Parts: sequence; C-alpha cells; structure tokens
Amino acid sequence: MKVIYLDNNATTRVDRAVLDAMLPYFEESYGNPSSMHSFGGNVAAAIKTARQQVADLIGAGADEIVFNSCGTESDNTAIRATLASYPDKRHIITSRVEHPAVKSVFESLARDGYRVTFVPVDSQGNLDLDYFYDHLGDDTAIVSLMWANNETGVIFPIEEISLNVKERGIVFHTDAVQAAGKIPIDVARTGVDLLSLSGHKIHAPKGIGVLYVRKGTKFSPFMIGGHQEKGRRGGTENTASIVGLGKAAELARERLARGDYRCVSELRDKLENSLLADVPHTLLNGDRQKRLPNTTSIAFEYVEGEAILLMLNEYGICASSGSACTSGSLEPSHVLRAMGVPFTAAHGSIRFSLSGYTTEEEIDFVLEKVPPIIDRLRQMSPFWQQAQKGAQSA
Amino acid sequence: MKVIYLDNNATTRVDRAVLDAMLPYFEESYGNPSSMHSFGGNVAAAIKTARQQVADLIGAGADEIVFNSCGTESDNTAIRATLASYPDKRHIITSRVEHPAVKSVFESLARDGYRVTFVPVDSQGNLDLDYFYDHLGDDTAIVSLMWANNETGVIFPIEEISLNVKERGIVFHTDAVQAAGKIPIDVARTGVDLLSLSGHKIHAPKGIGVLYVRKGTKFSPFMIGGHQEKGRRGGTENTASIVGLGKAAELARERLARGDYRCVSELRDKLENSLLADVPHTLLNGDRQKRLPNTTSIAFEYVEGEAILLMLNEYGICASSGSACTSGSLEPSHVLRAMGVPFTAAHGSIRFSLSGYTTEEEIDFVLEKVPPIIDRLRQMSPFWQQAQKGAQSA
Repeated sequence: MKVIYLDNNATTRVDRAVLDAMLPYFEESYGNPSSMHSFGGNVAAAIKTARQQVADLIGAGADEIVFNSCGTESDNTAIRATLASYPDKRHIITSRVEHPAVKSVFESLARDGYRVTFVPVDSQGNLDLDYFYDHLGDDTAIVSLMWANNETGVIFPIEEISLNVKERGIVFHTDAVQAAGKIPIDVARTGVDLLSLSGHKIHAPKGIGVLYVRKGTKFSPFMIGGHQEKGRRGGTENTASIVGLGKAAELARERLARGDYRCVSELRDKLENSLLADVPHTLLNGDRQKRLPNTTSIAFEYVEGEAILLMLNEYGICASSGSACTSGSLEPSHVLRAMGVPFTAAHGSIRFSLSGYTTEEEIDFVLEKVPPIIDRLRQMSPFWQQAQKGAQSA
Repeated sequence: MKVIYLDNNATTRVDRAVLDAMLPYFEESYGNPSSMHSFGGNVAAAIKTARQQVADLIGAGADEIVFNSCGTESDNTAIRATLASYPDKRHIITSRVEHPAVKSVFESLARDGYRVTFVPVDSQGNLDLDYFYDHLGDDTAIVSLMWANNETGVIFPIEEISLNVKERGIVFHTDAVQAAGKIPIDVARTGVDLLSLSGHKIHAPKGIGVLYVRKGTKFSPFMIGGHQEKGRRGGTENTASIVGLGKAAELARERLARGDYRCVSELRDKLENSLLADVPHTLLNGDRQKRLPNTTSIAFEYVEGEAILLMLNEYGICASSGSACTSGSLEPSHVLRAMGVPFTAAHGSIRFSLSGYTTEEEIDFVLEKVPPIIDRLRQMSPFWQQAQKGAQSA
C-alpha cells in the first residue's frame, strides 16, 4: 500500500542527497576524527564543513554549533548547562505548551526546588506576553520558549521576546526543532543564547542534534567525557550523521531561499480549508496566521483521535493526534488543554504535517477519505449522539 | 595510499552487513517508532529485534537494554542515575585508569563534594584488590570499574568483583565498551547492575550506545523528554543505528562463538613479539595474559609517541598514542602514569589495536616499517643520546 506521510513534525524522510553524503563515512572514511592520523583527520575536515553548513542555516558562527544526539539532548543540555552556570538563581520560565523535552526537565526542576513559571497561552496558542514579562525577575536563570509549536505550528515572537530578555541579562533558550528549516531563522537578529535543532525533522537521520551556543554564553557541559566539540560535549563524533545534517541544513537553506514552502503552505491550506468546509463540527486549533507553513491541527468534535488515526492508517495515511513523544498516553494533549480547547474537541484533534515531498494527489486522496471516516465514527460515538439530541431538543 | 588500520579501539569500520541492515531505515521505513500508524509501528518491530540481538550478546534480557547515543552517554547515565537514586550516599569508587567518560564524571562529582576513591593499579595495570575492598563502605553509592582498558587491553576480574560488591548492596557499573564483542560477557554470571556498550567499537556506526540496566536496579533517567525506552531515555529512537547495532551484536556473537579472535590474537602476538624482539629498549605496557586479544601497547623508550604516529601515518599506518578522546593533550596517558611507566617510556608508547579485518600482510608491512622509524627518531632524540652516553660512561 502506498504510504501518504503527513506526519513530518514527528519525523521526516532522509533526503537522497543526505544519505549519499553520509555513505562514505561508514565503511570507507570511518576513522575517529580525534585521531592523530590523517585517516581520522580527513573525517574531522568533513565535520568542519558540516558545522559551517548548519551555522549558515541559522545565521550563526561555526564555533557556536555543538553537535549532539538529538533535540531532546539539546534541550536538556541548554537548561542544565545554564543552571550549572548560575547556581544562585532559582527561578526559571517556560510556557505551558513546550515539547516534553523541555516540559519534563522543568517539571523535574520544580521537584528539585526551583521556582518555575509556566506562561499560559490564549485560545489561539499565542503566548500571554503580559504574564510573561510580569514574571521575569532578578532571580530568573533561564527563559525557555519554543520557536514554533510541534502540535499546532503556532510561532512565538522569539526575535522580539529574546531581545527584551537579553536586555534583562537573563539567558534565553529556544527549542527551534520544528521551526528550523521551515521558516527563516537568523540568530544574529535575536537575543537567543541557546537554540535547539534536530536533524530528523529536516530530512537528516534520527540521532543527530545541534545546540547553538552564542559566543560568550556561560556553558557547562551536560555530557562529560572527552574533549570533543571543544569540551562542550563528550563522546565520539557521529560523523556520518553530522555530515548528513550538514547536507540537510544546506538543502533546507536552499529551499527557504527558493520559497519552496509556499507550495507546502498552499497544499496545507487546501487540506485545511476543505476539511473545515466539508466536515461539520470541525475547528482549527491555533493561530491561522502566525503558523508554520506545513502544519495544521484540526479538531473533529465528538470523535476519538486515536480512532481516526487507525482508520486513516487503513488507507496508508500517516498523521498524529499529538506529539509522537507523548503517544500512548490517554490524556489529551497538554498543548490543546493549555489553549482551552474543549475536551470533546481536544480528544478528536488530528495533526497533519506536510513536507516538500507531499503532493497534491496525496492531499486529494486524504480529502476523499477523511469526511466519510469522521461520519462513520460519529455514528458510533455516544458523545455525538448526545450532542445531536441536545441540538434537536434545543 | 592503502590504509592499514590498527586503531580499532578508537573506532571501527562499519560492517557491510550492518550497513545493509541500516539502509532501509533512512528513505523507506523512516517512520517514528512512537507513532500510532503502522508505518511507524513497523519500525518499532525492527527496534525490538535489535534489542534482543544486543541482549543476547551479553546474556541480558531484552527489557534490560536501553538504547542511547554512545558509550559516554551510557557512562554518564549509569553514574548520574545511581546517585539520583541514592541521594544520601556520598562516596563513590572507580579506578585510576578509567576512560575519560567515567573519569571526568567522577572528577566533576569530587568538585561537587562527593568523596571519591580512585583505586590504584600495579605496574601490569591490574587493580589493587586489597585497596579496593578496604575502601568499600556503607556510604558507597556506586562502584564503576571498566571491564577492559582501552589503552592496554588489560582485563579487570569484573565477574568476581561485581559479585562481591553486590553482596554489599552497592550498585556496580562497568564500562564494557572495549570488552563487549571481543571477549565473552554474560551478565547473568556477574553482579553487574549497569553496563556500558558502544556501537562504533564493534563495527556498528558512531552515535549509538547501550546501557544495560539489570531488572530491579533503581534508575532515574539522565536524558529527560518523551516516554521512549520505557521512560529510561527521552528522544526519538535512532532507528537505523539501533538496527545496525543489533546486527553488529549478532555478528560479534557469532565471531565469539566461532573463536575468530584467536586469529586476531595470533596476529597481535606476532606484531608484539617481533617489535619487542627487533627494536631495542622496548617494553610491553600491561599484563600479557589478562588482556583483550586485539590490543597491544608498546613503549618505545626515548622517543615521542606523536612523532612515531606521524611517521607511521606517512605509510598509511593508523595507530594511537592513547585514547582518541584525550588526543591533542601533551600530558602522557593517565593510564600509563597510574601503572608507573617511566616518563621516557610513557611518552613513546603506541597502542596498536587490531580487528577481524586485519591481515597478516598488514602486520608484516608494519613490522617492516616500525624498526627503522624508531631508529631514525632516536637518532634525533636528545633523551636517547643522553641515555646512550650514560650507558657508555657507566
């Protein structure tokens, strides 16, 4: 069965060019980049190129790029490194809609005695800026706010916020795992000190991540061992994946420059507008404007998201009911709850996330299949039947 | 130029069969194993197989295998997880010859106020067992001892020690990164609670590691985020590399069963015996018997190791003067210093580490090239000239 992959915020297909770039580093140039011999040294040169490619994607300097194993490691490192550097500051701020890799660390720190502010969002998923600025204090060690939300695609005004936070002398971290490669990022125009990026969201393989560390930022390594990454991350460099990520960053930069995401965005809009028009009792989750071009989160009221996914799966359509990192949990998404999405809508929310590989044919196929699926599920749903009775008797 | 790779303790070539096993997981089966759809679910099944393959290599249960990004992460996690689980215990024990991934964490913990015992070794690199047992106490949270040394190949009696430590109710961690796949390991016969393993030392790619966590061992995750690895390690699973490591573990197990390392050991012995016989003022570092089959560390007195490596490099011969993770440092190896190897010998020590890919032709080539290199370097060495004068005047 043909797979229609609309789950690109969970992970992406590795680009052929990325894989081609990686292949020489398994069987041929497999030396350890830290070795004295030139067999290892040649590998170090390839890593240097990749470091520059990644730096160029976000307007950073090559020295500010620290390779590690994933976005989760970047988030853990950014937060832990900052707290280790400012042991006297005991207050930390994040939002209520962060990815588990940030959220769980903050929750763990709260248990350890840190004072934690979770900034709320409005019904569109936009940050409550007044609340945020009111809670910044002299005791605040770090602000960690995502650039774009993984479930709704909603974009926070990171450039503006980070510049304001920087003025206060507080370290600013952003989880840009979903934003990088999909919208332009130029750290030079921001007050961002630390930025997380993940390879497998931009058509590089799983298991490779980056932490951008602005020059001059106090830093204390999280993963301790050898002198790799200028003492900022121990462990033998994951050469093949680093080279792959470099290539993926270069390709992402070219796609942004060419405006490829306009096509992705058009397909996303077609999918979204048609579903909202064709299926009754359907809501869009999140701000329609300030949003990633590839993401839509749609609430199908009175049905179970998991049931929709299973029926989509029968047609080879891959989507998600929330973050893959929280799947398996029966709780509705913390992101949608923070936005105040009603229970009956949050439970039936589906995220479709597109990529440059998505075709109009695929979108048409999805548009053909989804409305009858929702209709069928609603016929079986006690919530739906109740709601219908309520409407009739009203 | 043909590369003669005798630096397999630094990293290894990815086996063709391992790469073949990995390839479908980049462009084809690229789903997120945590996803609800079967495109992701199929990937989860491949990870399950790999988990069993790795478990079988060390006699563990599949549930006891936690995938992560590298041996360094395994070591960091083992130590931090244990200390988080036993917050009241403030004493920790390791040896003086550990890999930087353990050594640096212990040094960092010493700065944080932990009482740290670094157990000495004798001139053969064997652990001072009396000293070790004398220093175990009720306050000891963890013992971390490597199974085999990365520089000398010397094997510690982990089975026996771990059983004794287990009787005392102390958590036992072993860094088996160099031992796994080269000598038989059966955790069921030991008292080991936590064991570190790295893919790229056994012909899997860089960037994949394993922490074995014995069932029932108190554990607190180091990398926090999603629910992956049953909540023991957050972050999207590195599918391709996990599958590759599974295959590499299977191949390593077959090699051990077939006794392939006897050939490696014969080639190592030929190299070692000939160099010790043909080059004057040459010493073997480490116990000749209790040693990995693939490793030899030879001290060429009165010459600089780095100079030897550079000249070997001219012939395409890859070796090492110590751990790749500490290269670039001008200090002689902490392992050789702990063994009391004299300064003039430690500085001229070269580690040759072979693999199943090493051929007799390669060893013959090395044996042809090394003696004249040493001779040439000694002619330029002030230490050598002083020593010669001393010998003449004596």
